[in-house]
Amino acid sequence: MITLDFANAMKECIGEEGLSEEELRGYSERALSALKELAGRRQPETAFLDLPDQDTGGIKETARRIRDGSGAFILLGIGGSALGPRAILEALSPFHNLRKRPRVFIYDNVDPSTLSTILSIAELERSFVNVITKSGSTAETAASFMILYKEMERLLGRDATGRFIATTDPEKGNLREIVRRHGMESLAIPPGVVGRYSVLSPVGLLLAEVIGVDSDELLRGAREARQRCMTEEPWTNPALMLSVLLYIMGTEKGRTIDVLIPYADGLRRLSEWFCQLWAESLGKLGTGFTPYPSVGTTDQHSQLQLWMEGPQDKVIVFLRVDDYGRDLEIPRVFTEMEGISYLSGHTLSELMKAEEESTELALARAGRPNITVGIPAIDAYHLGGLFIFFEIATALTGFLLGVDPFNQPGVEEGKNLTYGMMGKAGFEQKRVEVEAARRRKGGWRI
Amino acid sequence: MITLDFANAMKECIGEEGLSEEELRGYSERALSALKELAGRRQPETAFLDLPDQDTGGIKETARRIRDGSGAFILLGIGGSALGPRAILEALSPFHNLRKRPRVFIYDNVDPSTLSTILSIAELERSFVNVITKSGSTAETAASFMILYKEMERLLGRDATGRFIATTDPEKGNLREIVRRHGMESLAIPPGVVGRYSVLSPVGLLLAEVIGVDSDELLRGAREARQRCMTEEPWTNPALMLSVLLYIMGTEKGRTIDVLIPYADGLRRLSEWFCQLWAESLGKLGTGFTPYPSVGTTDQHSQLQLWMEGPQDKVIVFLRVDDYGRDLEIPRVFTEMEGISYLSGHTLSELMKAEEESTELALARAGRPNITVGIPAIDAYHLGGLFIFFEIATALTGFLLGVDPFNQPGVEEGKNLTYGMMGKAGFEQKRVEVEAARRRKGGWRI
Repeated sequence: MITLDFANAMKECIGEEGLSEEELRGYSERALSALKELAGRRQPETAFLDLPDQDTGGIKETARRIRDGSGAFILLGIGGSALGPRAILEALSPFHNLRKRPRVFIYDNVDPSTLSTILSIAELERSFVNVITKSGSTAETAASFMILYKEMERLLGRDATGRFIATTDPEKGNLREIVRRHGMESLAIPPGVVGRYSVLSPVGLLLAEVIGVDSDELLRGAREARQRCMTEEPWTNPALMLSVLLYIMGTEKGRTIDVLIPYADGLRRLSEWFCQLWAESLGKLGTGFTPYPSVGTTDQHSQLQLWMEGPQDKVIVFLRVDDYGRDLEIPRVFTEMEGISYLSGHTLSELMKAEEESTELALARAGRPNITVGIPAIDAYHLGGLFIFFEIATALTGFLLGVDPFNQPGVEEGKNLTYGMMGKAGFEQKRVEVEAARRRKGGWRI
Repeated sequence: MITLDFANAMKECIGEEGLSEEELRGYSERALSALKELAGRRQPETAFLDLPDQDTGGIKETARRIRDGSGAFILLGIGGSALGPRAILEALSPFHNLRKRPRVFIYDNVDPSTLSTILSIAELERSFVNVITKSGSTAETAASFMILYKEMERLLGRDATGRFIATTDPEKGNLREIVRRHGMESLAIPPGVVGRYSVLSPVGLLLAEVIGVDSDELLRGAREARQRCMTEEPWTNPALMLSVLLYIMGTEKGRTIDVLIPYADGLRRLSEWFCQLWAESLGKLGTGFTPYPSVGTTDQHSQLQLWMEGPQDKVIVFLRVDDYGRDLEIPRVFTEMEGISYLSGHTLSELMKAEEESTELALARAGRPNITVGIPAIDAYHLGGLFIFFEIATALTGFLLGVDPFNQPGVEEGKNLTYGMMGKAGFEQKRVEVEAARRRKGGWRI
């Protein structure tokens, strides 16, 4: 079960920079109305809440075929189409490509060097490609899809189509149209579900099954967390409480940077997944909070100095793991060296947890608010729970802020300018604008 | 050569949110005095400026022996001891472990799951371990060192010592003492050089040589960039100009978050390396700026929405690459699909650069200041240049802010509490304090 410990956000534990219980309770009504807004399901995008109930039969069948191919599984997608799958891969199958088959390559860019390397090492003849784009026309994904398709066609001729699985809208868009025309296999992202809330759709589940993770476990964890996170009582609902805490800290206390620091290498990508969710959902209309991707203990030697003594502009959200599954004892070597011999006899997980707790306390003593999300172990069940926990918390925070947590209008202008540069019909003027801007920039260059 | 384009930080290009030339020139004197402070070399930590002049003979010899071992190269270190080496690895040898030997594992945590996996796949009998800690007593590094040492001893008996290379202070500390007592091989981090400024010392150079990168090229690039970045004229010195721009934006305009977004997968880790440098050097005495690690085009689908329409609290620093070395053409497939067929005939690098330029302009039009650092290509020469460019810019910004860019006093408390928890002599009271704090936290938990 996911726990939330927010003692170090309270005055009692950190002094003046904390919240009082009264202050927090003052938001109960607004919190409940945000929850009711989500539960009321007025926006089609709230369909992400239904994902835990889906049937995974079709996904499992497709995954079986891919696993049997024994080459590589190449996932083409960007943003929500890549971050969720990658979070699953790194949490549940660390060092995957050095240990298991099929190898997995998640290509979420248009960097030619990366794709060239993937093409040269993936054993394409035996590989499958999963193209993920909800809209069906994401430029980055389309570009790599076209390259892979041509390359597969060169190698396999007419059989190439059978190596592609399109994950896209069930009805609309270019990719769906290609599926229809070419008889390509496909999986549907349910209508309403937007990219950053799609990890528990076929977007993340196909990859999970391909690497041997039972997608039903992800969904089971999500179902149970959903129940708790939709409870109409802030003081027993961890998602609602996290949302309220970060909302108050962000709007009333100037703490607009929210760090997510899991103490586990495997959850580093979960933190990056969260950062898209939080940034894109809340950052609009001049408001929003900046999420910061982190990992412990590593970032104690990178960011902690700033969190301890820099500006009072952050809330640190720890993600603590009770059981790492495996452990290693620190042996009795170099016993004459007092500076390090105290470690002997302890285990790595003891050290990991001691550092996590010590960092919480050090921050608290410096008047730096922090909150701890806890999970018993890193497995499919709890990962599924974390996904929906953070999704619900994000949507609720959007409602508290008065923004639409499901749109992203701000990225259109960049896309349109790119269309202009790439010669897409109807965007000729945009190219002229880029070229004019380029000329204007002349003087300020070293 | 590294270029700096700051047109989109100026009023002429972005309107009211930009700086005027007059405003910028008003800082010339302060900028020069910061540069003189660095050039004056009063602090021993400025020794990082001498690293480009070192002799790499010993490093090359050690690296040759490691390469011949043909097992794995395991690097143990955290913070500056890991981030620099990883930046070199990912920039200059992407997908290294799937393509080349020796495999490289950089272990910069105490996660037991990660280390267990490394132990099981590294072919330890033929491997070498590089232990990097300047102080010689970093708990995380010591813990993994002790485990690896015992394990190697079990496998190789007395020959185990020969598989370790200690990179540490030339005179002081536990690790240096172990080197003396056990006759272990070692490389010296020159006195004065602190972790986050150490990438161009043996910390980064040994790894470079092990993966087949000529460390002399890194140093040559650093030497030439150093010359330019120590020029006493802000308008021809890209490091000084970047420093002044971010300083003014941070202190006068409330833009306290600095995003570094390289448009290249291979430079994602460079961005993380920069984030430690910037955060730990500047975040103290209640001031400092928050660096944000990013990568393009990927984060256009994750963070751009927030940068475009969120709070006016950021400066976006693009890192543009002229030549990706390799390229791929987007072929003519699915020609009937207008939504994507416009891409045909272009190359991936064209798309990458169009997106970068479009994103710059979209931000500029939204009144969002941005700056572009440019390099001709990703190679050892330019990477070496980037390292010292950012190091000098960071030190200068520290002087402008009036903080010591070379210390990190804020991390001590957390370390001391951990010592208490782990039973280190002299820290008994700290354990009591952690336990007391744990009891106090009881009530605020869901």
